[in-house]
Amino acid sequence: MATAQKLPTLLNGVAVDGLCATIEAVKTTPSIAKFKFRVSNRWETGSRNRSTVASFSGANQELTHAKPFRLEADEPAVLLGNDLAANPVEHLLHALASCLTTSMVYHAAARGIRIDEIESSFEGDIDLHGFLNLDPRIRKGYQGIRVLFKIRADVPDDRLHEIAQLGSGFSPVFDSLTNGVPVSIAAERL
Amino acid sequence: MATAQKLPTLLNGVAVDGLCATIEAVKTTPSIAKFKFRVSNRWETGSRNRSTVASFSGANQELTHAKPFRLEADEPAVLLGNDLAANPVEHLLHALASCLTTSMVYHAAARGIRIDEIESSFEGDIDLHGFLNLDPRIRKGYQGIRVLFKIRADVPDDRLHEIAQLGSGFSPVFDSLTNGVPVSIAAERL
Repeated sequence: MATAQKLPTLLNGVAVDGLCATIEAVKTTPSIAKFKFRVSNRWETGSRNRSTVASFSGANQELTHAKPFRLEADEPAVLLGNDLAANPVEHLLHALASCLTTSMVYHAAARGIRIDEIESSFEGDIDLHGFLNLDPRIRKGYQGIRVLFKIRADVPDDRLHEIAQLGSGFSPVFDSLTNGVPVSIAAERL
Repeated sequence: MATAQKLPTLLNGVAVDGLCATIEAVKTTPSIAKFKFRVSNRWETGSRNRSTVASFSGANQELTHAKPFRLEADEPAVLLGNDLAANPVEHLLHALASCLTTSMVYHAAARGIRIDEIESSFEGDIDLHGFLNLDPRIRKGYQGIRVLFKIRADVPDDRLHEIAQLGSGFSPVFDSLTNGVPVSIAAERL
């Protein structure tokens, strides 16, 4: 006997029914909202190292990715590397870019707002006096990051800015980077 | 006529002579220490988007990478994606892992400390009550990140911990992530 079944409704490529189901499931079973994300990293030589992203936990389960993802890092020649991959501070900008974009897309979908296209650019300032320990007043990390989003959506201007603010309002990487995260480091002999 | 020429001295795969030359050059011409790193990002659909890392500025020049690097992002099925790439918060851990490692390797080289091998693992906690806007007391980003470094080097224990602290002491991503960075976001119509 056929039962009524709601097909997944895709908006912005997001299964809105799945998103609503996730929200309801978290309300019923709060523990499924707890996730642990992981990478392991191995140094190759000099500025070259590589991370593997294989598993995570969430929804009260240990989960594995469809395949392990390999992420590389190097430095350009001017920073004494071989320029075989993006460098760590460029990877940080990608983390921010991808998270702001996905957060915007998911939360727009949840509000029924269709987005047609998003492009964005990111630029951050670093003064090597910090990293090279030449001036204690200059920080080692980014002094500031500027972001420009270009969004195509059939909405009035105020709605366009509302869409852009969904990114910064909900992005885990934006929150982590702007408000800071406690990081504890242990070391042992290999 | 032959002139005396010092060959680059490699330690930990780092051209130590190049590192010392960079430090001396920054002392003479402070403006060469100012770098701008950039990525541009394009949304594909749903949780899929892609960054391109093509150029940066530093050493008073506009510089381009040997080739543009493409960095991808997706989400696993449990987070409504297709699991085709690491997700944004995993990329953030890679940025941290790669930067701590490279900072450790460079600063150990500058101190004449040889490192033979480095492996590290990273794990961070996220509670989706934040991202899903179900509890305003729970942050959207990482609540905390734990790092374990395993280092092989022919040094006594106190020196091993000194090596590990070179990472957190000098890493631009560690500083950015633990102390926070101001991020300004503008949006316009595409």
